[in-house]
Amino acid sequence: MKRDVYLEDKPLEEALAEYMSHLDQVGALQPGESEVIPVEDAAGRVTAAPVYARSSSPHYHAAAMDGVAVRAADTFGASDATPKRLAVGERAVVVDTGDPLPPECDAVIMIEDVHFLDDITFEITAGAVPWQHMRVIGEDVVATEMIVPANHLLRPVDLGGILAGGVTEIAVHPRPRVALLPTGTELVQPGAELKPGDIIEYNTRVLGAMVSQWGGSPRRREITADDYGALKARLQEAVSESDVVLINAGSSAGREDFTASLIGELGRVLTHGVAIKPGKPVVLGEVAGKPVVGVPGYPVSAVLAAELFVKPIIYRKLGTVPPVPEKAEVIVSRKIVSPMGTEEFVRVKLGQVGDKIIATPISRGAGVIMSMVRADGILRVPRLSEGYNAGQTVPVELMRSLEEVRETTVIIGSHDITLDVLANHLRKKHPYATLSSAHVGSLGGLSALKRGEAHCAGTHLLDEETGDYNVSYIKRLLADRPVVVVNLVYREQGLIVAPGNPHGIRGVEDLATPGLGYINRQRGAGTRILFDFKLKQQGISPDDIRGYEREEYTHMAVAAAVASGSADAGMGIRAAALALGLDFVPVVEERYDLCIPVEYYDTPYIQRLLEVMAEPAFREEVRALGGYDLRDCGKIMYDSRG
Amino acid sequence: MKRDVYLEDKPLEEALAEYMSHLDQVGALQPGESEVIPVEDAAGRVTAAPVYARSSSPHYHAAAMDGVAVRAADTFGASDATPKRLAVGERAVVVDTGDPLPPECDAVIMIEDVHFLDDITFEITAGAVPWQHMRVIGEDVVATEMIVPANHLLRPVDLGGILAGGVTEIAVHPRPRVALLPTGTELVQPGAELKPGDIIEYNTRVLGAMVSQWGGSPRRREITADDYGALKARLQEAVSESDVVLINAGSSAGREDFTASLIGELGRVLTHGVAIKPGKPVVLGEVAGKPVVGVPGYPVSAVLAAELFVKPIIYRKLGTVPPVPEKAEVIVSRKIVSPMGTEEFVRVKLGQVGDKIIATPISRGAGVIMSMVRADGILRVPRLSEGYNAGQTVPVELMRSLEEVRETTVIIGSHDITLDVLANHLRKKHPYATLSSAHVGSLGGLSALKRGEAHCAGTHLLDEETGDYNVSYIKRLLADRPVVVVNLVYREQGLIVAPGNPHGIRGVEDLATPGLGYINRQRGAGTRILFDFKLKQQGISPDDIRGYEREEYTHMAVAAAVASGSADAGMGIRAAALALGLDFVPVVEERYDLCIPVEYYDTPYIQRLLEVMAEPAFREEVRALGGYDLRDCGKIMYDSRG
Repeated sequence: MKRDVYLEDKPLEEALAEYMSHLDQVGALQPGESEVIPVEDAAGRVTAAPVYARSSSPHYHAAAMDGVAVRAADTFGASDATPKRLAVGERAVVVDTGDPLPPECDAVIMIEDVHFLDDITFEITAGAVPWQHMRVIGEDVVATEMIVPANHLLRPVDLGGILAGGVTEIAVHPRPRVALLPTGTELVQPGAELKPGDIIEYNTRVLGAMVSQWGGSPRRREITADDYGALKARLQEAVSESDVVLINAGSSAGREDFTASLIGELGRVLTHGVAIKPGKPVVLGEVAGKPVVGVPGYPVSAVLAAELFVKPIIYRKLGTVPPVPEKAEVIVSRKIVSPMGTEEFVRVKLGQVGDKIIATPISRGAGVIMSMVRADGILRVPRLSEGYNAGQTVPVELMRSLEEVRETTVIIGSHDITLDVLANHLRKKHPYATLSSAHVGSLGGLSALKRGEAHCAGTHLLDEETGDYNVSYIKRLLADRPVVVVNLVYREQGLIVAPGNPHGIRGVEDLATPGLGYINRQRGAGTRILFDFKLKQQGISPDDIRGYEREEYTHMAVAAAVASGSADAGMGIRAAALALGLDFVPVVEERYDLCIPVEYYDTPYIQRLLEVMAEPAFREEVRALGGYDLRDCGKIMYDSRG
Repeated sequence: MKRDVYLEDKPLEEALAEYMSHLDQVGALQPGESEVIPVEDAAGRVTAAPVYARSSSPHYHAAAMDGVAVRAADTFGASDATPKRLAVGERAVVVDTGDPLPPECDAVIMIEDVHFLDDITFEITAGAVPWQHMRVIGEDVVATEMIVPANHLLRPVDLGGILAGGVTEIAVHPRPRVALLPTGTELVQPGAELKPGDIIEYNTRVLGAMVSQWGGSPRRREITADDYGALKARLQEAVSESDVVLINAGSSAGREDFTASLIGELGRVLTHGVAIKPGKPVVLGEVAGKPVVGVPGYPVSAVLAAELFVKPIIYRKLGTVPPVPEKAEVIVSRKIVSPMGTEEFVRVKLGQVGDKIIATPISRGAGVIMSMVRADGILRVPRLSEGYNAGQTVPVELMRSLEEVRETTVIIGSHDITLDVLANHLRKKHPYATLSSAHVGSLGGLSALKRGEAHCAGTHLLDEETGDYNVSYIKRLLADRPVVVVNLVYREQGLIVAPGNPHGIRGVEDLATPGLGYINRQRGAGTRILFDFKLKQQGISPDDIRGYEREEYTHMAVAAAVASGSADAGMGIRAAALALGLDFVPVVEERYDLCIPVEYYDTPYIQRLLEVMAEPAFREEVRALGGYDLRDCGKIMYDSRG
């Protein structure tokens, strides 16, 4: 069972420089033959040649004001004391803005400065200076002058300048044709009925949208199975019909990863494996003078590899350069450990809390496309760094504008589905506002508040002594921090079980039954604390619960584990069970509050949320989820200021 | 002759707030009925509803690595000292990344950690932890979770998240349909044969491209003549078929400006006249619940009015907000006087010189579309300000990115056509580099160097005593500033005259002939100094030259004046005469140099220019212009360091 297990580990800068330089040498970065298009369709295109004016604008001496065109010499001497009378005729003509001046005239008097005595005769009280209130020939554009140079990205105003210069068609660089080849026996088209092992082929849709955004013209081909011969034929066809070819995936070194050997057979592999994470198994190749890139299969790897290696090719072929991404200096909220020798691209959520922008890393799996959907920015950990410490200031490349980041309410803490509903209603009411929630459990949320990383925390921490929620924890953990606690919802917690409850589970007491598998929440989660409390009440040891050590971070993930059959029960909220069509064994009603440091309470970050929480539309949608009670929603449950 | 001469002068904020609030009240800002489109076509669109996952991703437990799927319990106890042997079978299956795990398995061992003894038997030296190297169901997307909220602008990665969640079609806000109504008897379509008084109708092309850029769907109508009845019918039709209507122009208060009264008859005019410059004569109206904006006719006014009043409408109807323009703090290079009571939008060129970004205002005429084409940014002078002093720090909204501005070589001084050729070749060789030239004459250029506003100055100043060029002026004006002077070209200066030289002009000596009209260059221009020198040589007084006081800022503008017949002669370079098909009477060959402060000489700003000046392609193009000699092009003529 021979496998070519190891990939190269070439530093990013080296791989990129070497690849671009090779492509340059073989002419693969040259723009294609220019195409001539109507100017009015040219916004967003790039000029292939300088554009010179064919005619001047104005192309005649024009009145720049509504008024009377005169010969300036006829007006000399007019003043308040000695008004001058003139008569409309060959050398005094009423004109509107834009009218051509009669050949005898060389100035315009504004209509406001003209006093008509009758239909013909008018009086002026000041002389006109030659050429006043006129637009002379070529004032805007002079025939033959260069309006825009070559390799200029055309903006709407440029179209105006070019059309004003009498030009109606221009030469632009063609959009590079990019062939997208999805490969893999496991791939199915979106919308297909899914069998285990099927993977929805969405990567080339994402890559295609990226290519379009950069100015290229993507063309997605049919899915090719993992068959060397079929792939070879497909690649040869794509190379002959396109300017750039992306093969997705088969770019690693597995049993059915043919991309590298295929490119090697038909052309040349410059690099197979770059020291980046995600995105390592990328193939940088060239076939018949065309760039051919083997893009990795994991979606985050695919997006990153395309950003790093395909985007510069497209822009070079368009004779221009990529826009520079907006950057910001941010504070890392927690330690980020990254392997030495690899440049890592960490997706982060961002929010302005106080006067700092806080970056919180999100899932680092290359397979988690939602980490890109949820990311506000990308933090690069350089190849020769082992990461960052919490509190360190680092640069991030923004995926949302700084203004949007600044309008984001940051909530860190326990997860509840109503937060999604809240986020959605917030955005509907305030299009510029975002609710960004990170799920680290109730205790994690209170710690985040303590460290100044969030505007509020979602928390449902049961005090075993008093049976009350949250307040005793807050008093202890945030002793020196004045806060307001506002209720969001009451919700049912219980055991999520398979449909029909096949094991007849009645409560926590039944979970120690041999053969039953449990799925737990992570340490610090309110649900975990509740579960531990219930175990203690029942005198059950965690050791008796099979799967106690298996941790998930959200209610939905627990429900998904039960739905898949990998666990028989897990504690969570009713809404999660309902969402996946599972059964639910109620255990307790608990209080879920928002804990808000007073300094944020009166800011729009919080007041906007409270407004939305008061809206009937929000409340109805939450009630429809099931398992929620909103009797205290928006009510202040505790104010540490007394 | 009754005219409604005066417009309102409403402050911008007031006009905008009042208009948006009225439109909001009549429901004109609501998005249209949502449309359902395939996810793969949805990049750049805005969600009309939150998107929830239909299925989980992965939808089965998947191997996250190439390797062997095992039951973790079977591996316990394996170590280097006590390797464990397993056999491929029901509970140990070779898997590739993405393969489904067999039901009996709950972990994957990486292929690198497996030692096959034969085709079936393998050995491991470490136990597997349950769920290691697996992607469990829902790791990326959990069925029913919200993937993106409503009013979310979809990026390529979002399409991936949505497709991964099993969703193939989504509801998005429709693109607002924007009708563009060009009106005016003087308008002709681009490409038409031009008669005096004809104006090329390009405004609606520019507006259409802007609307598309914002996410709207523009539809340009036929040109309507200035006829109240015809306009009324056209407007009614447009209102019934569109979401927003722009009428261009007739928005002022002239004899044939019907826009305001028409909107008033069919609906309501909220504002007619806003205290902005350019853009004052704008009409903000509403007809049948649709926004109808009378956009001014001057192109810069049209662009600004659309930016200020139409853009926010389009974005509101898309459920989102406009991107915030990039801003920068810059230094104003010269005094800007702006009328109190009016908010002025001054177009500026920008360049980084030393550690400051310098803003140089360009033409302020509302009719000069090239002022927008050439602008790098817009400087707002607030309504209650009278302007800025030279050297003051002010904010500008950028029209080019700060990075591009930073890569711009700023040349201020005398105008020569070869600078356009140089700019074009520079951009071809360095797609990120720009040559920005401001034309203020040779002396103006040296002053700009003195004030630290440019990287170099173009200069051709004749020393009347020595007959030499530039150096004596530089020694005097830049005494304490070490500079290098590099020759660009020698060029012929002479008199530009009508084709066939109808007045038989042989030289400067003939210009005092009665009846001849001259067109001059501005004070401080090298050509003006040369002309004055020649007059003195001939013993002619400026008073004897009719038109001596008429000043233009470029050779091409002088040539245009001669071409139009408004002047019989003007001094300038041969290339300008050739470009407009005029005749040329040579007077002198002069030297045109670049004066470069030594601190910029070795920077890319200058070295890139010198590189391009050495290229045969650049030189051939300059020679083809006619009247140029490149014998010293690129040669150092003077180095003040000795």
